[in-house]
Amino acid sequence: MSEGETLSAAVIGGSGFTGGELLRLLAGHPNFEIAQATSRSYDRKTVGSVHPNLRGVDLRFSDPADLESVDVLFAATPHGVSMGQIDTFFEHADTVVDLSADFRLNTVEQYDEWYDGHTASEYLDKSVYALPELTREELPGAELIAGGGCNATATILGLKPLFDAEILDGSEQIVVDVKVGSSEGGAGGGEASSHPERSGIVRPYAPISHRHEAEIEQFLGVSVSFTVHAVDMIRGASATCHVFPGAPVSKGDLWSAYRGSYEDEPFMRLVAGGGGVYRYPEPKAVAATNYGEVGFELDPSNKRIVVFSAIDNMMKGSAGQAIHGANIALGLEETAGLEFMGLHPVGAP
Amino acid sequence: MSEGETLSAAVIGGSGFTGGELLRLLAGHPNFEIAQATSRSYDRKTVGSVHPNLRGVDLRFSDPADLESVDVLFAATPHGVSMGQIDTFFEHADTVVDLSADFRLNTVEQYDEWYDGHTASEYLDKSVYALPELTREELPGAELIAGGGCNATATILGLKPLFDAEILDGSEQIVVDVKVGSSEGGAGGGEASSHPERSGIVRPYAPISHRHEAEIEQFLGVSVSFTVHAVDMIRGASATCHVFPGAPVSKGDLWSAYRGSYEDEPFMRLVAGGGGVYRYPEPKAVAATNYGEVGFELDPSNKRIVVFSAIDNMMKGSAGQAIHGANIALGLEETAGLEFMGLHPVGAP
Amino acid sequence: MSEGETLSAAVIGGSGFTGGELLRLLAGHPNFEIAQATSRSYDRKTVGSVHPNLRGVDLRFSDPADLESVDVLFAATPHGVSMGQIDTFFEHADTVVDLSADFRLNTVEQYDEWYDGHTASEYLDKSVYALPELTREELPGAELIAGGGCNATATILGLKPLFDAEILDGSEQIVVDVKVGSSEGGAGGGEASSHPERSGIVRPYAPISHRHEAEIEQFLGVSVSFTVHAVDMIRGASATCHVFPGAPVSKGDLWSAYRGSYEDEPFMRLVAGGGGVYRYPEPKAVAATNYGEVGFELDPSNKRIVVFSAIDNMMKGSAGQAIHGANIALGLEETAGLEFMGLHPVGAP
Amino acid sequence: MSEGETLSAAVIGGSGFTGGELLRLLAGHPNFEIAQATSRSYDRKTVGSVHPNLRGVDLRFSDPADLESVDVLFAATPHGVSMGQIDTFFEHADTVVDLSADFRLNTVEQYDEWYDGHTASEYLDKSVYALPELTREELPGAELIAGGGCNATATILGLKPLFDAEILDGSEQIVVDVKVGSSEGGAGGGEASSHPERSGIVRPYAPISHRHEAEIEQFLGVSVSFTVHAVDMIRGASATCHVFPGAPVSKGDLWSAYRGSYEDEPFMRLVAGGGGVYRYPEPKAVAATNYGEVGFELDPSNKRIVVFSAIDNMMKGSAGQAIHGANIALGLEETAGLEFMGLHPVGAP
Repeated sequence: MSEGETLSAAVIGGSGFTGGELLRLLAGHPNFEIAQATSRSYDRKTVGSVHPNLRGVDLRFSDPADLESVDVLFAATPHGVSMGQIDTFFEHADTVVDLSADFRLNTVEQYDEWYDGHTASEYLDKSVYALPELTREELPGAELIAGGGCNATATILGLKPLFDAEILDGSEQIVVDVKVGSSEGGAGGGEASSHPERSGIVRPYAPISHRHEAEIEQFLGVSVSFTVHAVDMIRGASATCHVFPGAPVSKGDLWSAYRGSYEDEPFMRLVAGGGGVYRYPEPKAVAATNYGEVGFELDPSNKRIVVFSAIDNMMKGSAGQAIHGANIALGLEETAGLEFMGLHPVGAP
Repeated sequence: MSEGETLSAAVIGGSGFTGGELLRLLAGHPNFEIAQATSRSYDRKTVGSVHPNLRGVDLRFSDPADLESVDVLFAATPHGVSMGQIDTFFEHADTVVDLSADFRLNTVEQYDEWYDGHTASEYLDKSVYALPELTREELPGAELIAGGGCNATATILGLKPLFDAEILDGSEQIVVDVKVGSSEGGAGGGEASSHPERSGIVRPYAPISHRHEAEIEQFLGVSVSFTVHAVDMIRGASATCHVFPGAPVSKGDLWSAYRGSYEDEPFMRLVAGGGGVYRYPEPKAVAATNYGEVGFELDPSNKRIVVFSAIDNMMKGSAGQAIHGANIALGLEETAGLEFMGLHPVGAP
Repeated sequence: MSEGETLSAAVIGGSGFTGGELLRLLAGHPNFEIAQATSRSYDRKTVGSVHPNLRGVDLRFSDPADLESVDVLFAATPHGVSMGQIDTFFEHADTVVDLSADFRLNTVEQYDEWYDGHTASEYLDKSVYALPELTREELPGAELIAGGGCNATATILGLKPLFDAEILDGSEQIVVDVKVGSSEGGAGGGEASSHPERSGIVRPYAPISHRHEAEIEQFLGVSVSFTVHAVDMIRGASATCHVFPGAPVSKGDLWSAYRGSYEDEPFMRLVAGGGGVYRYPEPKAVAATNYGEVGFELDPSNKRIVVFSAIDNMMKGSAGQAIHGANIALGLEETAGLEFMGLHPVGAP
Repeated sequence: MSEGETLSAAVIGGSGFTGGELLRLLAGHPNFEIAQATSRSYDRKTVGSVHPNLRGVDLRFSDPADLESVDVLFAATPHGVSMGQIDTFFEHADTVVDLSADFRLNTVEQYDEWYDGHTASEYLDKSVYALPELTREELPGAELIAGGGCNATATILGLKPLFDAEILDGSEQIVVDVKVGSSEGGAGGGEASSHPERSGIVRPYAPISHRHEAEIEQFLGVSVSFTVHAVDMIRGASATCHVFPGAPVSKGDLWSAYRGSYEDEPFMRLVAGGGGVYRYPEPKAVAATNYGEVGFELDPSNKRIVVFSAIDNMMKGSAGQAIHGANIALGLEETAGLEFMGLHPVGAP
């Protein structure tokens, strides 16, 4: 498309956290115009009545049964919803960006291993996974984009340079210990996510068998030992990867690897040591932004590399990444609408 | 100035919280270019080494002794510093925006009542107080701008419509009970602001005699009963004003008053009742933005009006308001660089 | 009863927050033995499966339909439940301690003004309100005890000395601005109390017309201007009372008043000024205890007294106060089971 | 000693967090009487002026130069202080309990590897490490007790049953990913621990080379891959151990191992799965108590055991464990003064 052209966009499932974040980003995006936001529960209510930051946006939710035709449709619905409506989506839009897990995996076998039966498996090999640092080449012109999962994104961003640089070959032991904020649980919340029960915790949330392992395995070609903890923040996902390379590695090797993978990436920052308060990646430093930070230390006595990776799960881990992917797919400026640089001080936030 | 022109700006005291917020806003502002950021303690360090959100900004702190000439100088130094350097500031800039209390009050008598002796009192009647909703008419062309204090701003924004509409005449009892976040204490921090002592508190921070009373009295012409509490948030100031009007007032009167004062204001929102989670103003709803929210309830049995006012103390309460004032003073688009609409969910943030 | 005797106790509604706190206190009390804890939802589950701190207590919830006979029955059910079962309660226990609002007010007229129709109003004038600092004389031998409401307790404790010392006579303007933690909302929680929406807030929770005003009015004989805010803590209620006495008052008068009312009280502490981090009452300083702290400042310019009062709403504001009242009613050591002195550092907690 | 006898106790370094916790526990202990609490900075101030929970304790700090003779001396001073005063300590007390790292390691070689030169190395082989679940047999009659480090304690408690049951033999890869609260940083605090910078974080605090590895290695005979993160809580340490046993292991094997090690331990609880909100060990569930919780999951696909271990670092991780050790050393009831069962809800706390 030509510079300055405006594309119409719809957000399906606009009352959830991810839907609200999409609306926020689209409202501030130079190339998109929000044509529709759907919500079954909040039909006809203003978007600002659910998302107080959108009080200045003149838009009301509409019923998901009344889809309008748009250039791009973003689906921010729970897992399993998009696969049932994907044909309808494509009747109303040329480009569909799905933020659920429905189209992230390549084969129905993979899907069935981690989720329940897929009902639109013919789309699986047509979708392009949107973790742009990994799949940038495949995105231009993509019609179905599957945004990467938040914890998978943090992990893949942390480990990818080690594979790119052949420091790892897939045979190594990799432990990934993840800490996430409460927004990962979505809006609404039950007892476990109520403030009295959820505040101040370090809670094993997915000790084993977290579904994002499937994405990590698909893209890195390696099975990781993956455990997720819930901690007291709202936004943010932090992955600490404990990696045991087969051959000796130096700090210089690591700097080369991470610089090699990310030095041209507009949203990746390398943070490893140095002075001050923020010496390694942490979610606070990227909160409210589409940036990812990665860093590392080398533990000589154990021949261990410790990799830290931090993102805002609502942004780089879902809505921001979806916009990033759409920008590339549609030939827009890659960073359009995603320039916000974050806050200091800020509470994660 | 003509649209699209770029002005050079300096930030004095760039390593503090307010200085960092100014740098963030200036870096994203279409009409400013940061020429210099000074910090005695962090001389030659990158701004990103102190403010992790500014890691992408290519700028190092310089010594405050080495001022460059700029179009606009923003001073984010502790109270008492600017008055000693104001002549130097004007040697290097045509426009000075001071965020401290040094030039907020009109007379040296007022200053001496609340602070210690003023050393540049000849500037007091030249400065324009920047709470644009109050002083917009005086700002164009102003050479010395004094940004309003955070708690004073929250209070004045909450009460002003009642005076505008002559619901209050200054003879009434007004209690203002304020709750603030930890960023008001500034960077560095001592024992009382350490995380173990500062978390989870409702702490009487200024039970009486808070200096911002002076600003409130100067602009509203009334002495208020003012008490400030520290609570567990980082950004945010919330003022609850308990007001006892002399004559009966209806909810309709209140709606008229608040709409009359703010309906054309780009940064003010009226939030009073309605459904959902966010029924009244609260800091979370405006966190990271330059918006202020005000709302009210009427307590018939007590002939009391309860007014709620919420701002982000770092933004509408200091750096954002300073940019807002500078935009108007310099003939720029009033909202330039201040369009960020906030986040949901967010932790205050 | 004689020293060392053990009384059997039941807790009705044992799976809620207040019920769990009662169970904790009773389990550690030298004179009580828990005979039964009821919960409709968790029938036959261990109390530790709901309250993780009670994992060491060998007790399972039973159905509330199967009441056993005990010496004392504590009812921690939602408002309106106890009044429907009060006859049944007395069939199974000689002493009933109700923690709801059902029996706090003296007359059905008062009740109807603030709640909906009372169905057991014949008990209203038989119950003794358990705010022992206020009603100690009436408690010995009481058969029906109504534990005071948390926010009313904080307020009454703060203001009572001013009435005792005749600094106030009931004709004055009194503004009470309360800040409370999330445990006041009870277990379970909906959207507004979910962690992403509830964290980091200063939220007008009851701008006007909070029902605890009824208790304050009943016991202090004065109508107060009452507003409650939710803030980011779990336990804790803090009342700031802005009081405007008719005649001049000195700090000495205030010290005399507060010492006069509380110097012999085992659970009251006077905290007003001094050095260090904790200069005034705050919930952190009394978290997890049955202590209440009160303090004050005098604002000469406004002829205002600012009173601060802080309690743990789960303890002094409900379960602790209920045990305290029961101790006195039953002739036990007043402080039995309530000696825990709190924690430092602690997060409110 | 005979039941009911009272021992005099001193706390050296009583104004720090650990010192305050010792004072709290001693004040509530049936067999100890606090004879002295020293603090250089707060000499002659009341202990309640520093620790607000101790306002009811009638005791003032004294100068550490004026030691009194006592039965037991607890030293809660920074690392390196006790070794310089150990002879003086023993001149004033028969039993010394040191909470620093000074006497935890057996040999000067071990000490020098992790800390700087030891100046009282002749005491190293006389001290008994107080992690009673590990060293109970050696504690009775011990004259010098070295309380275990908080993060080491959490880790050792989690892993010990796997060694006891010979599921591990020391040749396996063990990754320990620890999350800790802000009280581990001690009182006072600098910029990194200020509330605005410390709230809402997941911060790599000791990516590699944490000194507690030395204790783990000494007692488990294995080198672990150890990384510590700071998260947003005040009290609490949580260790997640990712363990890769050499031979296949079943869940039954794990239950047997953990039950075998801990079923008779008064302060250990096994929490693995089940329903409700609290399915695995977490710091909230043991906050303010001397309990440790351990639990596990088995990850078949990776032949990985994930072990979770949670303690309150101020209690089981320091002051509580010191009292526990002293109780055993002195022939007191093992659980005396440590019976507090914790709180629900609570904020970690």
